Amino acid sequence: MSSLKGIAASSGIAIAKAYRLVEPDLSFEKKVITDDVQEIKRLQDAIATSKTELEAIREKANAELGADKAAIFEAHLLIANDPELITPIEDKIKSEKVNAEHALKEVTDMFITMFEQMDNEYMKERAADIRDVRKRMLSHLLGVKIVNPSMISEEAIIVAEDLTPSDTAQLNRKYVKAFTTNIGGRTSHSAIMARSMEIPAVVGTKTATKDIHNGDMIIVDGLKGEVHINPSADVIEQYKQEQIRYEEQKAEWAKLLHENTVSADGEHVELAANIGTPNDLEGVINNGGEGIGLYRTEFLYMGRNELPSEEEQFESYKTVLEGMQGKPVVVRTLDIGGDKELPYLDLPKEMNPFLGFRAIRLCLEEQDLFRTQLRALLRASTFGNLKIMFPMIANLDEFRAAKSILEEEKQKLTNEGVTVSDNIELGIMVEIPSTAVMADQFAKEVDFFSIGTNDLIQYTMAADRMNERVSYLYQPYSPAILRLVKMVIDAAHKEGKWAGMCGEMAGDETAIPLLLGLGLDEFSMSATSILKARSQILRLSKQEMEDLAQKALQMSTTNEVIEAVKAAVEK
Amino acid sequence: MSSLKGIAASSGIAIAKAYRLVEPDLSFEKKVITDDVQEIKRLQDAIATSKTELEAIREKANAELGADKAAIFEAHLLIANDPELITPIEDKIKSEKVNAEHALKEVTDMFITMFEQMDNEYMKERAADIRDVRKRMLSHLLGVKIVNPSMISEEAIIVAEDLTPSDTAQLNRKYVKAFTTNIGGRTSHSAIMARSMEIPAVVGTKTATKDIHNGDMIIVDGLKGEVHINPSADVIEQYKQEQIRYEEQKAEWAKLLHENTVSADGEHVELAANIGTPNDLEGVINNGGEGIGLYRTEFLYMGRNELPSEEEQFESYKTVLEGMQGKPVVVRTLDIGGDKELPYLDLPKEMNPFLGFRAIRLCLEEQDLFRTQLRALLRASTFGNLKIMFPMIANLDEFRAAKSILEEEKQKLTNEGVTVSDNIELGIMVEIPSTAVMADQFAKEVDFFSIGTNDLIQYTMAADRMNERVSYLYQPYSPAILRLVKMVIDAAHKEGKWAGMCGEMAGDETAIPLLLGLGLDEFSMSATSILKARSQILRLSKQEMEDLAQKALQMSTTNEVIEAVKAAVEK
Repeated sequence: MSSLKGIAASSGIAIAKAYRLVEPDLSFEKKVITDDVQEIKRLQDAIATSKTELEAIREKANAELGADKAAIFEAHLLIANDPELITPIEDKIKSEKVNAEHALKEVTDMFITMFEQMDNEYMKERAADIRDVRKRMLSHLLGVKIVNPSMISEEAIIVAEDLTPSDTAQLNRKYVKAFTTNIGGRTSHSAIMARSMEIPAVVGTKTATKDIHNGDMIIVDGLKGEVHINPSADVIEQYKQEQIRYEEQKAEWAKLLHENTVSADGEHVELAANIGTPNDLEGVINNGGEGIGLYRTEFLYMGRNELPSEEEQFESYKTVLEGMQGKPVVVRTLDIGGDKELPYLDLPKEMNPFLGFRAIRLCLEEQDLFRTQLRALLRASTFGNLKIMFPMIANLDEFRAAKSILEEEKQKLTNEGVTVSDNIELGIMVEIPSTAVMADQFAKEVDFFSIGTNDLIQYTMAADRMNERVSYLYQPYSPAILRLVKMVIDAAHKEGKWAGMCGEMAGDETAIPLLLGLGLDEFSMSATSILKARSQILRLSKQEMEDLAQKALQMSTTNEVIEAVKAAVEK
Repeated sequence: MSSLKGIAASSGIAIAKAYRLVEPDLSFEKKVITDDVQEIKRLQDAIATSKTELEAIREKANAELGADKAAIFEAHLLIANDPELITPIEDKIKSEKVNAEHALKEVTDMFITMFEQMDNEYMKERAADIRDVRKRMLSHLLGVKIVNPSMISEEAIIVAEDLTPSDTAQLNRKYVKAFTTNIGGRTSHSAIMARSMEIPAVVGTKTATKDIHNGDMIIVDGLKGEVHINPSADVIEQYKQEQIRYEEQKAEWAKLLHENTVSADGEHVELAANIGTPNDLEGVINNGGEGIGLYRTEFLYMGRNELPSEEEQFESYKTVLEGMQGKPVVVRTLDIGGDKELPYLDLPKEMNPFLGFRAIRLCLEEQDLFRTQLRALLRASTFGNLKIMFPMIANLDEFRAAKSILEEEKQKLTNEGVTVSDNIELGIMVEIPSTAVMADQFAKEVDFFSIGTNDLIQYTMAADRMNERVSYLYQPYSPAILRLVKMVIDAAHKEGKWAGMCGEMAGDETAIPLLLGLGLDEFSMSATSILKARSQILRLSKQEMEDLAQKALQMSTTNEVIEAVKAAVEK
């Protein structure tokens, strides 16, 4: 048995066979051939196998993932059947006496370039489809296996360099038991996805795809951040026991499902959940969420070919609002750009995407897109307790601009005779240092703050949270971060507003005592962390934590803070 | 006449012919040829012309730029003469009946790949040399002109997409009268370089390389940020008058050369200069600098093939310290990484280099490099008034680690019998928000702060200062920035330390009244801004500026601050 150490990104233990989700090596040499008839036959065989495969995937996707996911494979089949693409490849083999791989590459390159240069998003997408189909055909020509994650049909643990949103969209949740990846941290997409799917994940192992082979039996220990490869029967047995203990612990927490979240000295705080889609609602309810502190609307826009319509958005927001039955639902307007790209928006590549044109910056410029979302939200507002917040607000000008657009749309809807709630609280994410520093000014104009620690920490420390080489600087317990958090909470309270937090930090065992002490009103986290957090807060005295927080603010390093929390909690 | 609007990055007015420093189009098609003898002759002609050209450039570089700059062309000549490279190209033309361009490309590609894969920095550099030589040969095969900036021999204004350090290293300062570029801002390399060369520059014009042709007569107005293309005789005359007025204004300022910088109500501040190399010393002295507030040591490491030796660094630091005759010289230790790369360090490409592995982060890991620089500095310390500061400090752990390395090297030198000054002040750059927020803790351990506003602003606003799409967020006068600056200054004063600023903001007309009011002790700027800043400070009352600053801290937007400064200054 060999073992890997990584970051425990989602808790729990899984034992299953490895399924490697890695890019295959499809390199080849150009060759001169003599028998072009035979070579064309090779090509036709590869095309036929590709088509059979695509048909199978389409059926399976249709049955298990839905028609929208299946549509992409329908498009691929059309390409594989298109004589305008296939005939030139055959001609090239015949006239130039080159191998099928080379002819396929040259002809598809030409189409891809042609489509990519068109000033039309739909046609640009076709270039990506041709790439995908070419990859499949090449794999059959070369006898290399490519992965079809949508075809997984037995329990498996996904092993990957990293998982993108489009990778995870293709996974059948029924069979996927855990993730382990080479790169990423607690805030990477893979990690957030694993917590939302309630499966264990160990990320940042550096070498998982190198050390793990397809079909290896592996154990992913999302509690300790370890991955064991081909463990002995004894070790498997031991981890099965561990699994049982973890389930028992979860059962203990489950008893707190309908409890209020009240500190040992009687102070209530709200424990809310971060969600990405209406599908996550079930998890929120099953885990005792007192509200939704962050509804990330990006997922509505991702993994598709065009913007979601107002109607489609309205339905999603309505579903979530109704599902929460009057409990608060904080919806964050579109936070796209940076590391989250939308192919149909055609955003320029940036040197430093985390410091770039994204979120509210983009929405204030691409106003059609923004207004559509706001209208959908306003129309849904009568179905529950809606609160809207803007992401990446850096100064008051931006907030005022966004707010006035919202008010314009509200007025328009009212003029059209549409009922809109007049109780929609309007807040901002505090994730940029300038906004934390100016919280007192903002507090006069917003209804609430939600501190987004994932970004706030990376900007405050000037350290990319995805970059392994500077990840040691991603320090949630740093006194600098605590001071900014305090500025925000104090500013809110001074104006009679509330302050929440929806970054990873809000569900973190070491951070919770400090945040309670700083006076945070709402803690929004992965649904699966809520019961554990509730169990922790029930045992803490808010007044003692206030003393702890006051001391931590005057400390000089992160380590001092961690030691102080340990001492205070163990006491 | 057509005109372009850009960012006034370096003041003054220049009138001269345009010299376009742009990448030529060297694309070509693979062709089958019939007469291989003739084709080889074409290749040989191109090689011969390239060699003649390289010899001329080498001579000129040797005479005007020095032997080190000429050495690179010597290396290129060796390649152009190398039969191991040339014979295979000729063979390929003969055996495959392909055009010379294609044969040249294929053979050189092979060598480039081979050299690039070697684990040896020297050999990797050879790959770059082969690329350069190939470019030259291709240009002659295709009849396309490539630019040889080192061959400029008459007054010219450089027109470029952007200027890199290696571009500017090849320029003969005697003939270059101004820059204008498509991209960049006041803090880009082109802008800083122009100010250091004391020539006007207008950057960020977006289309300069598109709209301006080689040899066009152009006017660069670095005061208003305008570029005029092929102006009429009248306009030229008018700008010549403008040039005279600007020279007169400069002459007025020059009268302040030996004056103290004292506010109207008698408070002294220090006006220091930012420099990059010992060559900049003359400018500091000619512009009345009271010290050097930032000596950027990166330039010692750039545009070369290996790390500078301790001896070489020692000589540079000694020259600067002696040249300043006891006036303070603040040397910043190596701030490399991010946008500033060193080919021989082989740093990994990062997704967000501005939030990456750079400056002190790199120095604490690559300790050999750091210790060599510190030893050179310590040895030079007896030749003047040396102060050392560390860049990109994000927390106290980093400062303590860097300081203890410095102390170890000091101890070692003392043990070796080398004299080291015991009066070296040790400070940090404050350019990361966390450090500004924690300034009170830092102030107990550092001797001084130097606020680096270029980075501090971009991190505080989470906006890449090089990215045009978010440049509107790069707001030096934002109340958020002013609050952070105040935290730093107040923290320093509380512990009896001093606080300076070495970002662009320190020399900015609108910022100076605010900074004076906030109590900044040292303003470090481009040498060419010093006299103008002195003339401004002589007219300001510090007490009145304190009132202004207090009000600005409570404002909610940048525009309010700008209006308030205008009102206070005009009063």
